Amino acid sequence: MNRDTDIVVIGGGVIGCSIAYQLAKRGVRVTLLEKDRIAGQASGAAAGMLGAQSEMHEAGPMFDFARRSRDLFPDLAEELKELTGLDIGLTHRGMLKAAWTDAEAAALRADGRFHQEAGGRAEWLSPCETGWLEPGLSKELRGALHLPDEGHVLAPELSAALAAGAARLGARIMEHADVTGLLTESGRVIGVQTREGKIRSAGTVLASSLWSAQILAPLGVELPVYPVKGECFSLTVRQPLLARTIASDGCYIVPKPGGRIIVGATAQPGSFDRSPRLGSLLSLAAQAQRLVPALAEAEWERAWAGLRPQTPDGMPYIGEITACKGLFAALGHYRNGILLSQATGVLAASVLTGGAAAAEAALPGAGELLEAFRPDRKAAAAAVRQ
Amino acid sequence: MNRDTDIVVIGGGVIGCSIAYQLAKRGVRVTLLEKDRIAGQASGAAAGMLGAQSEMHEAGPMFDFARRSRDLFPDLAEELKELTGLDIGLTHRGMLKAAWTDAEAAALRADGRFHQEAGGRAEWLSPCETGWLEPGLSKELRGALHLPDEGHVLAPELSAALAAGAARLGARIMEHADVTGLLTESGRVIGVQTREGKIRSAGTVLASSLWSAQILAPLGVELPVYPVKGECFSLTVRQPLLARTIASDGCYIVPKPGGRIIVGATAQPGSFDRSPRLGSLLSLAAQAQRLVPALAEAEWERAWAGLRPQTPDGMPYIGEITACKGLFAALGHYRNGILLSQATGVLAASVLTGGAAAAEAALPGAGELLEAFRPDRKAAAAAVRQ
Amino acid sequence: MNRDTDIVVIGGGVIGCSIAYQLAKRGVRVTLLEKDRIAGQASGAAAGMLGAQSEMHEAGPMFDFARRSRDLFPDLAEELKELTGLDIGLTHRGMLKAAWTDAEAAALRADGRFHQEAGGRAEWLSPCETGWLEPGLSKELRGALHLPDEGHVLAPELSAALAAGAARLGARIMEHADVTGLLTESGRVIGVQTREGKIRSAGTVLASSLWSAQILAPLGVELPVYPVKGECFSLTVRQPLLARTIASDGCYIVPKPGGRIIVGATAQPGSFDRSPRLGSLLSLAAQAQRLVPALAEAEWERAWAGLRPQTPDGMPYIGEITACKGLFAALGHYRNGILLSQATGVLAASVLTGGAAAAEAALPGAGELLEAFRPDRKAAAAAVRQ
Amino acid sequence: MNRDTDIVVIGGGVIGCSIAYQLAKRGVRVTLLEKDRIAGQASGAAAGMLGAQSEMHEAGPMFDFARRSRDLFPDLAEELKELTGLDIGLTHRGMLKAAWTDAEAAALRADGRFHQEAGGRAEWLSPCETGWLEPGLSKELRGALHLPDEGHVLAPELSAALAAGAARLGARIMEHADVTGLLTESGRVIGVQTREGKIRSAGTVLASSLWSAQILAPLGVELPVYPVKGECFSLTVRQPLLARTIASDGCYIVPKPGGRIIVGATAQPGSFDRSPRLGSLLSLAAQAQRLVPALAEAEWERAWAGLRPQTPDGMPYIGEITACKGLFAALGHYRNGILLSQATGVLAASVLTGGAAAAEAALPGAGELLEAFRPDRKAAAAAVRQ
Repeated sequence: MNRDTDIVVIGGGVIGCSIAYQLAKRGVRVTLLEKDRIAGQASGAAAGMLGAQSEMHEAGPMFDFARRSRDLFPDLAEELKELTGLDIGLTHRGMLKAAWTDAEAAALRADGRFHQEAGGRAEWLSPCETGWLEPGLSKELRGALHLPDEGHVLAPELSAALAAGAARLGARIMEHADVTGLLTESGRVIGVQTREGKIRSAGTVLASSLWSAQILAPLGVELPVYPVKGECFSLTVRQPLLARTIASDGCYIVPKPGGRIIVGATAQPGSFDRSPRLGSLLSLAAQAQRLVPALAEAEWERAWAGLRPQTPDGMPYIGEITACKGLFAALGHYRNGILLSQATGVLAASVLTGGAAAAEAALPGAGELLEAFRPDRKAAAAAVRQ
Repeated sequence: MNRDTDIVVIGGGVIGCSIAYQLAKRGVRVTLLEKDRIAGQASGAAAGMLGAQSEMHEAGPMFDFARRSRDLFPDLAEELKELTGLDIGLTHRGMLKAAWTDAEAAALRADGRFHQEAGGRAEWLSPCETGWLEPGLSKELRGALHLPDEGHVLAPELSAALAAGAARLGARIMEHADVTGLLTESGRVIGVQTREGKIRSAGTVLASSLWSAQILAPLGVELPVYPVKGECFSLTVRQPLLARTIASDGCYIVPKPGGRIIVGATAQPGSFDRSPRLGSLLSLAAQAQRLVPALAEAEWERAWAGLRPQTPDGMPYIGEITACKGLFAALGHYRNGILLSQATGVLAASVLTGGAAAAEAALPGAGELLEAFRPDRKAAAAAVRQ
Repeated sequence: MNRDTDIVVIGGGVIGCSIAYQLAKRGVRVTLLEKDRIAGQASGAAAGMLGAQSEMHEAGPMFDFARRSRDLFPDLAEELKELTGLDIGLTHRGMLKAAWTDAEAAALRADGRFHQEAGGRAEWLSPCETGWLEPGLSKELRGALHLPDEGHVLAPELSAALAAGAARLGARIMEHADVTGLLTESGRVIGVQTREGKIRSAGTVLASSLWSAQILAPLGVELPVYPVKGECFSLTVRQPLLARTIASDGCYIVPKPGGRIIVGATAQPGSFDRSPRLGSLLSLAAQAQRLVPALAEAEWERAWAGLRPQTPDGMPYIGEITACKGLFAALGHYRNGILLSQATGVLAASVLTGGAAAAEAALPGAGELLEAFRPDRKAAAAAVRQ
Repeated sequence: MNRDTDIVVIGGGVIGCSIAYQLAKRGVRVTLLEKDRIAGQASGAAAGMLGAQSEMHEAGPMFDFARRSRDLFPDLAEELKELTGLDIGLTHRGMLKAAWTDAEAAALRADGRFHQEAGGRAEWLSPCETGWLEPGLSKELRGALHLPDEGHVLAPELSAALAAGAARLGARIMEHADVTGLLTESGRVIGVQTREGKIRSAGTVLASSLWSAQILAPLGVELPVYPVKGECFSLTVRQPLLARTIASDGCYIVPKPGGRIIVGATAQPGSFDRSPRLGSLLSLAAQAQRLVPALAEAEWERAWAGLRPQTPDGMPYIGEITACKGLFAALGHYRNGILLSQATGVLAASVLTGGAAAAEAALPGAGELLEAFRPDRKAAAAAVRQ
């Protein structure tokens, strides 16, 4: 790619920031456009879990993609710390998926066997072993699946560090920059229209999931993405209460540095509203307190909500949009945006700068992934039609 | 009182601010000393209820005092609005005390009869009448006691307006001003020692409940006051949900201007900790949502806690401390500080400027009240001894 | 207007809220759509001045409109307080426009004569008179123009109260509701498309100034509006320092209830960025401290910025858009949105419910105003062409 | 020291937290009492500079102490990260002390020679070299002294990490815990009185500088400490502007991770007020913008103030108080609390657990330092008498 050409990235969530960072690392002149503030939506609201195992329950491209993305984090964390001084709070202390009933226990054991067969570490713990590992857990649990390699990061810091790293490498980061349309020429996207003027570019990346429909509609393209609201809250404790992330039935409890604990998350599809509601917080808090009774004494900090962008078949769209040459989609990561951000960044940046070969070199298996995540894949369209 | 003499008020909660304001109105040169910020403790954390009936269940000085104090609010609100531009949010839309069981209903009916006999308005409502008045209430309630004259104010604004009003009338309001001791001469208090120097005064008012022990200890005086932590949270709704305050079994739901709703309050005696805890908020939220099911959809705002200063017999200390001439106590108002602040201000300021006669003129029945609230009364001391 | 029809108002700034409120008062079923939060942009960032004289320097429709709008505030304040409990902080303590040089003094005297001739109160004050009225002002001023009828409100509270009042009267207020397009049928606007679905309506009001271009572009309509960034900061003082608003050369100092002081505002055209910048705050602070030296001791609170929507000829667009039947514009109020909100609300709501006759009845002279503010007026278009 | 004995540390600023952490590391059961929140005062307000050279201008115990303390930070940062997950943001990118005049340049050159002779790195830079190293600096500077080894940390994170680390090692951290007096027996301090009860301990550390007078007064001990208010503000920039800390004439500009910049600090002796004032911020901002003109475009974040505890001779008090056996003072670190916290923690903890020999082993030269910082040294007392 010629040093004079630009790539415009639309959307300053963790996906857009990761792509901008990887492009800047590859010597590309990038402009990142964010309509509000960096990581102002879901990326800043996330608990930051890297659930490469806990969120994946069957073999397939998502499973591979997730594991590869997780493996990129340790180097990235060092790189960003060196470059920007920011610490993304990466830890790998593992997770316990706890069972309240025999049925849940059986399902988790099956899940554990799947991960073992896939070459990952996963171990079923009896109630006694569970309590030995995490004494703060309820004594009434029927055991837990231990995934010792699961980790998490500080989600807002991750996006901030990627954006700051990109800026340090020469990228232009523009906040309060609304994209109002795409510039096209002979059916090819050649830049973007913002409220402050036109920006021409050799390539354009669309990484703004829930606002993508507005941008694509005038081109007659539809990439279905739906919002799923997730409500969370945070607590603080003085004395350490948990070492690992605890999860059970939609509720997870993530111990963060310095005694902070994030509890998440509800899943309410269909609404663009971003307000945390009393009823949701109440049931989430009841679940968390049942799992870790001593949380009753934790200090309340605050509550918030974010919208995760879901696609019909549960997989992100990554790749050029067939009907719009020059427009590369990287969106729809649902609740795995933090985890998948790194592999998405590497994949998008390598394809954009060196094509399929570069992608394969950067991320072995890239070809299959790109095939699976094609924006015009049938599965997504089929799901829409139903 | 000579225009050259000063009165120092220790403590910038609502009681200290009210006394400073009433003194300034009477032409006294006042200095108010607050160790942190105005209304930074319980006075800023209160829901602002004026529970002249709902908090009082038997005849006696507290009952009289509460009703008189409530009656002072309408004039005060106008006065402060005129003087400072601040609106204290006074409303008198009434309260419903709701019953879940027949036993609760019977107790509330008895309470209602007491208030009727005492000349106040109180009316028992059937479940149907309750629902007609407040359609947002649970249909499972057994009825409610309607106290149509109960009201509330915005607690932080009340203290702020009293302090601003006092300042406007010439009082000196000093924040970040720690009183480290009292100056005495021949057994008489003649001023205060602060970290920034001495302030001499003709009179000194002690209105800092939970820090009073530190100030009185060197003089060998003990005025027992205990902290009782109260946790609250606030919500917002777009469409009006309630017109009146709802109360039941320790939980109250107070509709504030503009769709804000305050839910309070736990009562945890003995701790000076001011952190809102998950467990307390959880049980409070469950109570509130059971009372008003549509609160489940309300937006969460924030949670906080305050410490109310309780005395052994439940009554405040108001009057000169026998063993320390020149030192006037006005503290220990427990969870009725907002309500009682106005009568306390008038009582203290009139006694200090004109003695018993002036107090009687300003507040008929003042003599009996001052007798009941004497800091050296036997009841308080007796309760301590046990 | 039929009770079954709806009007959709796009934009929850002060203009949209005022129109929704006036429509709800007239019995119309209104839905207000705000992409973020009510008054989240310029309307919440304003200092709230009602500069019916200070902002107007020549006869014409803007001058008349401003004075009529100002005159609507006292009744409105009472109405909203009664309906919602919210106090909009209306005061009419006047303003001093201060002169540092003889040239400024001459210009202000001329301005004063204009206002006197127009029947308004305006009085030139010598340096001595200026200092007598406002002792906090610099002794180096060459005098000031006194406009005793100028006032101000609390800007965020005004929008909040209008929205809450509208909701109380049955309007539906929807936040986080992005309008992505207009629904049209045979060239007539018949509703809006949001990310959550279509809303059909008998009439549609466009009150979202800086986002209007995106909505109008697909219809081929252009209503030029430009952002002008304004930076402000606030201070607090314990002892009253000023009674009146002080203005000089782009800097104004507005004393708010309870010792709060707002200092504004820069004017930086052309940028959509909403960040307060150090350099701008520095020069604004230097101006303010020169005007009122004792501000040096005021406590810093915070800084912020907002974008005012400016039109080419400085007048708002109010009226149906010729090319889009059914679409009524009410936008582009630049830095007078707070002041003009009430007359705009009355004008728009009366036209929409009763046509020109109703408008004339509600606001005498409405016909001329509507002619002057026509969205397709030549002046605006001409200014664009240049 | 017996495992059953306790040490109570009074004061949860950076000094108290560091001592508690070092004691916990040595196996001591510690209780840390903080009247408000951890690092709620000066320790949380600091810019976090480790000015081992920039703050020291002559040989002596302070100079040695500062360099030793600085050298402890790299290991500490790793230790705390491992133990608590918190990153204290340690960087060592150096500092430029800039000269506007020839006189300033001469003074800085002399300062540089002193540091070179003392074995430290220090280099005078011409205007051209200065601009080459930091292109953002004003072109009008006469050069700068480059201290390449100076660094800084994130001050609030440092205290938080020390407290969390201590807690993890078994210390009890109590916030909202006011110490109202010391318990004594035969002239020996045997614990503390808090508002919630007595705590007996084998040793007591007094690390609460500006509240120490209240605690010591009843024992007839005077350790003079004076508050010096420091006001600061923070900015953010998207593109990196500075790599090193810039200092000139009381103003320093500290580039923090992720584009945050802290500008400090005024020095206003004698007041306990903790409000940032407009006048101070204005002159600080003018200085900063003159040094780095592009700061004019930086985004304003917020302003705050803290009180630094100064002693008459500029040195902290570290050691047992002669008149109160069992009471160890560690306070009065003025504006070098962050820098000196580590050596103070090691010194205090080693003396308390193993006496002079242990201190010498832990920190060579400890004996001389303890002699210099003796609370009853003549210099401090002499300075008071004048």
